[in-house]
Amino acid sequence: MLVKHGVVIGLGRLTSQLPSSSSVLRRQQFLIRALCGSQIHRPKLIRAMSSTSEADAESVLRTVTPSLDLKRHKGQAGKIAVIGGCREYTGAPYFAAISALKIGADLSHVFCTKDAAPVIKSYSPELIVHPVLEESYSISQLSEEDQRTVQDKVLGEVDKWMERFDCLVIGPGLGRDPFLLECVSKIMLLAKKSNVPFVVDGDGLFLVTNSIDLVNSYPLAVLTPNVNEYKRLVQKVLNCEVDEQNAEDQLRSLAKQIGGVTILRKGKSDLISNGETVKSVSIYGSPRRCGGQGDILSGSVAVFLSWAQQLKAGPESPSETPAILGCIAASGLLRKAASLAFTKHKRSTLTSDIIECLGKSLEDICPAS
Amino acid sequence: MLVKHGVVIGLGRLTSQLPSSSSVLRRQQFLIRALCGSQIHRPKLIRAMSSTSEADAESVLRTVTPSLDLKRHKGQAGKIAVIGGCREYTGAPYFAAISALKIGADLSHVFCTKDAAPVIKSYSPELIVHPVLEESYSISQLSEEDQRTVQDKVLGEVDKWMERFDCLVIGPGLGRDPFLLECVSKIMLLAKKSNVPFVVDGDGLFLVTNSIDLVNSYPLAVLTPNVNEYKRLVQKVLNCEVDEQNAEDQLRSLAKQIGGVTILRKGKSDLISNGETVKSVSIYGSPRRCGGQGDILSGSVAVFLSWAQQLKAGPESPSETPAILGCIAASGLLRKAASLAFTKHKRSTLTSDIIECLGKSLEDICPAS
Repeated sequence: MLVKHGVVIGLGRLTSQLPSSSSVLRRQQFLIRALCGSQIHRPKLIRAMSSTSEADAESVLRTVTPSLDLKRHKGQAGKIAVIGGCREYTGAPYFAAISALKIGADLSHVFCTKDAAPVIKSYSPELIVHPVLEESYSISQLSEEDQRTVQDKVLGEVDKWMERFDCLVIGPGLGRDPFLLECVSKIMLLAKKSNVPFVVDGDGLFLVTNSIDLVNSYPLAVLTPNVNEYKRLVQKVLNCEVDEQNAEDQLRSLAKQIGGVTILRKGKSDLISNGETVKSVSIYGSPRRCGGQGDILSGSVAVFLSWAQQLKAGPESPSETPAILGCIAASGLLRKAASLAFTKHKRSTLTSDIIECLGKSLEDICPAS
Repeated sequence: MLVKHGVVIGLGRLTSQLPSSSSVLRRQQFLIRALCGSQIHRPKLIRAMSSTSEADAESVLRTVTPSLDLKRHKGQAGKIAVIGGCREYTGAPYFAAISALKIGADLSHVFCTKDAAPVIKSYSPELIVHPVLEESYSISQLSEEDQRTVQDKVLGEVDKWMERFDCLVIGPGLGRDPFLLECVSKIMLLAKKSNVPFVVDGDGLFLVTNSIDLVNSYPLAVLTPNVNEYKRLVQKVLNCEVDEQNAEDQLRSLAKQIGGVTILRKGKSDLISNGETVKSVSIYGSPRRCGGQGDILSGSVAVFLSWAQQLKAGPESPSETPAILGCIAASGLLRKAASLAFTKHKRSTLTSDIIECLGKSLEDICPAS
């Protein structure tokens, strides 16, 4: 069966109607693969046939989460880096980075400004925090040439680590300093050059909305806008207002217009599209809207996306892209954890309480052993 | 019996066949000691007879852990110092230093750079943190002569404490700054001059792999490489690749080639050798590979090694060196604690969770009263 754990997938839908004889099935599968080229995870012709549907997030979580194995060594379960954290904001990058570890990543880095680093470090000794980014106020006295030298140094500090990372999260607590954002736009180019996937959230979305080319047609980019960020993105890219009546079609058009990036539109239901398929995740979360939950989500997408990338292509493998699977899994897990935290803490539920529930929520869905 | 708690030991093997009459036994032991010089813990001729075997880590833990006594005063249960912690890394030295305390050491110091100190201090008021190390960026404007003055000052700050320490841990979160590493190589010389044992891990192993002379033939040095660090060490010292088929013989050769230092090769099973004996510790740990577990291990080896050094020579004493005993005990305890933490936290197990389980794990094996 190509439909695994109830994940409704384009390839699965088609092939589940094929003759059951295994030799015929294999031949049909070969034809389908030939039609789709080498992109076993992205069968474009077929996915175009799929329509919006509620994803079975728990099944996706079970599919993408790797089994634990004593033979594996440090790093193989994921190395994530958050680009964010400045003089003003330090909580957001911490939430994203610690969430990645709590889900099961092995290593979680943060690249932030010099002012933010000691604070983020002090939140947890588990994170590796690099104080390498610079804001305008610290370089405004320098000549243009010296400013370029500083920028090159920043980029060098990030790039020497780039190939070690399975996914970046760009934006939590980034702020809007022009010099900093220029550096971050170049970090995106470096990530693309090294084929490292990235999730863009918060102020990273401000940057991207103003410079769509930064992510355009990069299939490993995921955008996770909230209501306001989505509104600005729609206005800028589709040149219209948000259409709640045709939310799914509009999201599909938006993702297609940006060349097939994956967008997770946060809301009462989370909607996910890469310009072809559209999935929703609506399982019950929490009515608390305390700040920081988006940071848990972005860190979680990074982990699940990188795990989904490790799934081996085969007749049992899901046909959705790793980015779509990562979004579904992260959305489902955050909702479960928020619900559990709310049961315990009610109105006083904070983001840290939800993070503390990530482990148990994942364990309930997908036991470690 | 010289074989205590099932620890298979060279001296034990020989002397357990001796006549049981106590006066004859004492005379025989005198002769053995005379043959082995003053190194009662390192009877080379005899240990060469021992072969690889699974160590009974729980018995070693019971043997080396001192009983608690109201008459003892602060410091007698161990004074450990971690050399590590720089602008980038602060978690690793904290994990090593706090683990030493959680196992039962009385005092735990950290010598780190000025930037790292406030952060490491903020993790815990239990640690004594000395902000004395310097990185290149803070001294690059100085003349060569002034740089030497800075180095002398750094060395003076560490050396004035040296004789108070029972063991150093060199490397957790050290980074790879050239000026810093040069200072640390001189700290190793100071430790050797004062006969203070040291455990080398992380970036300390990067330093040692490039300058084997720093540890060569120092019997109180312990190296604790992971997969990659071990690979580089084998390539550099033995000029070949890692041979998994003959892992134990290769480890023995490597340790012998470095003049009998003790090496704890971390892996699915931990392998320990000083060029003569080879021991393995394979008891079940945890499948989580979150960063920081190596720091717990290095801090633990330091404590158990220093406790093992306090064991009085006598007919009941184990013949393995304190370094070998320290490695076996630390490996066993970390595995127990990781297993306990994993039972509680599953995929969300972090290094801090394992540290929280060190106390209970030791208590289960070796009750305090």
